[in-house]
Amino acid sequence: MKPININVSLGARSYPIRISADFQALAALLGSGRQALLVSDEHVAGSYGSACRTALETAGFRVTPITIPAGESSKTLSMAERLYTAAAAAGLDRTSHVVALGGGVVGDLAGFVAATYLRGLSLIQVPTSLLAMVDSSVGGKTAVNLDAGKNLVGSFHQPTAVLINLETLRTLPQREYRSGLAEVIKYGLIFDAAFYNILMESRTGLRDRDPVLLSSVIRRCCELKADVVARDERESGPRALLNFGHTLGHAVEAWAGYGRWLHGEAVSIGMVYAAHLSRRQGGLSTDDVAKLETQLTALDLPVRLPAQPADWTEIRRRMQIDKKCTDGSPRFILLEAIGRAVAGRLVAETDLSEVWNVICH
Amino acid sequence: MKPININVSLGARSYPIRISADFQALAALLGSGRQALLVSDEHVAGSYGSACRTALETAGFRVTPITIPAGESSKTLSMAERLYTAAAAAGLDRTSHVVALGGGVVGDLAGFVAATYLRGLSLIQVPTSLLAMVDSSVGGKTAVNLDAGKNLVGSFHQPTAVLINLETLRTLPQREYRSGLAEVIKYGLIFDAAFYNILMESRTGLRDRDPVLLSSVIRRCCELKADVVARDERESGPRALLNFGHTLGHAVEAWAGYGRWLHGEAVSIGMVYAAHLSRRQGGLSTDDVAKLETQLTALDLPVRLPAQPADWTEIRRRMQIDKKCTDGSPRFILLEAIGRAVAGRLVAETDLSEVWNVICH
Repeated sequence: MKPININVSLGARSYPIRISADFQALAALLGSGRQALLVSDEHVAGSYGSACRTALETAGFRVTPITIPAGESSKTLSMAERLYTAAAAAGLDRTSHVVALGGGVVGDLAGFVAATYLRGLSLIQVPTSLLAMVDSSVGGKTAVNLDAGKNLVGSFHQPTAVLINLETLRTLPQREYRSGLAEVIKYGLIFDAAFYNILMESRTGLRDRDPVLLSSVIRRCCELKADVVARDERESGPRALLNFGHTLGHAVEAWAGYGRWLHGEAVSIGMVYAAHLSRRQGGLSTDDVAKLETQLTALDLPVRLPAQPADWTEIRRRMQIDKKCTDGSPRFILLEAIGRAVAGRLVAETDLSEVWNVICH
Repeated sequence: MKPININVSLGARSYPIRISADFQALAALLGSGRQALLVSDEHVAGSYGSACRTALETAGFRVTPITIPAGESSKTLSMAERLYTAAAAAGLDRTSHVVALGGGVVGDLAGFVAATYLRGLSLIQVPTSLLAMVDSSVGGKTAVNLDAGKNLVGSFHQPTAVLINLETLRTLPQREYRSGLAEVIKYGLIFDAAFYNILMESRTGLRDRDPVLLSSVIRRCCELKADVVARDERESGPRALLNFGHTLGHAVEAWAGYGRWLHGEAVSIGMVYAAHLSRRQGGLSTDDVAKLETQLTALDLPVRLPAQPADWTEIRRRMQIDKKCTDGSPRFILLEAIGRAVAGRLVAETDLSEVWNVICH
């Protein structure tokens, strides 16, 4: 395939997203410096670690590979400390790079380490999951979790470059792949009705991982993400719309224990929750909500929770410590229509709990 | 006293340094928001915690006080995690503030927590040590230590305001006070020969903590710091000059074990080391170096290390992992003259080890 380049416009901190079918461009994207910490997880390292390492070493970089256990449970301060210690032992300096080869967990954790080691090193995101390609690798959000909540600790730290190798999607486990589709559908719901309709009509291609379809879908998601990040880097305005489905989603992930639900699965349920709230406020029709649920179900994404209505108190408490909470009340991103989201909406407590009962079976 | 205001000019992130003799201005400096995490150490909390808390609560803020053990050994990721957990339990949100009441350790640690909790909260620095007043509270550097080195993990995060209450110097332990004087002398050495000469002639006033003298000395240091931070926020240029004496100083602190040497004590020895290196490169005269040593000694600051020349290997290794190290070689800030420093100087290995032998007794 012909490589695709998308620019994230942030003045002096602008950077490219390069979509291709190999790791060839990696060393060129790092630019200067002589050393790199190559962070990956135990699944991805086996498949792609040596290809990345070779691409860097061939270009003259000294590479220190470090592998973390796969899964959300690695996104902790103590795992960050392991990476810092490895960086110190390898003698990384301010001209060195951190390369995050993996999904959202690797990107968030390695990104946080790059943001905070020596008060900030260059970060190259090399996402290997659909979710990381379309969402977490672009935009500079980095994070680790606390017991008290997901992504509560983090930094804004824009990468030097993002390299998407579409070939890595071939080996992505089915559950991870589906989880990424939830974020893809989110872009249509909040920003682009035409794109949403294309996705609704491409169910088979999405299920079959059609490479031509995926290349254009990932490109469109990256364009939408690049645009909103350029307009609102620090999430004081429209970027917050990307959190559609995440207020309940994050609460569900923490409540169930990190790693039990994949992020995209929790977001799928969270989007259904927010869609029902949007219907109650007049933004969506009953038909819109039903079609969304049908689409998610067809892609094997969850639309209901195996929870008891009695768990509501705990879920409600966890929504309270969400980052989007302002002066004590959780705010929701709701849809005014398919393709048009609005942020900062207060919702009546009765609606919150009644829709909770709807999504519990 | 009439309060003094100094502005740190950083565009939209400009902020005031206010020098006064009480905590009255505190709530006004926080501005909006309703909640504050008040971080202090066990020494400072007893003397000034309740005055600060009252100043905030009277203005309607909900205050969550948290006290950490005094000393450098608190500047760790696990202590940061304790603060994050307290912040989550208190329900802090993005409109909340972190107030750092204490010396450099409290400011660096609470600053790092403010920089990274919810990807960044408002930080108010209320320095109570001389060192924090003239140096660490201004400029946005935050940090925690690793076993591998001091301040290896951190963030640039400018405060919302700095409130210096000179009254707190009255209760500052003598060793801490002297430690701060090392950084005061540093400002003269690197930036301002006239100020350096005033300090040389004010030995008695400095020893006696003369309040009028200290008010003007702290003001001058803050002006010099504010100026260099405004010119070079991220330390890519002249701000690096503030690290004069710190390359060896940090190595000595880590080598001896954090907390054994106060930061200013280690910097005192580091400045003597750098002054001898400067003399070898022709910047200072033998007389300049002797007068500096006499001044530091008169202020009860160390100018020699109780180390063996044999410890050099370990010290040299630690200088290698210093943040200022570029592509493997430590760089030094040296003096071209009293009041004029220059950064990024490579020094011959023989000079490094020979001057090490000079400062070991």
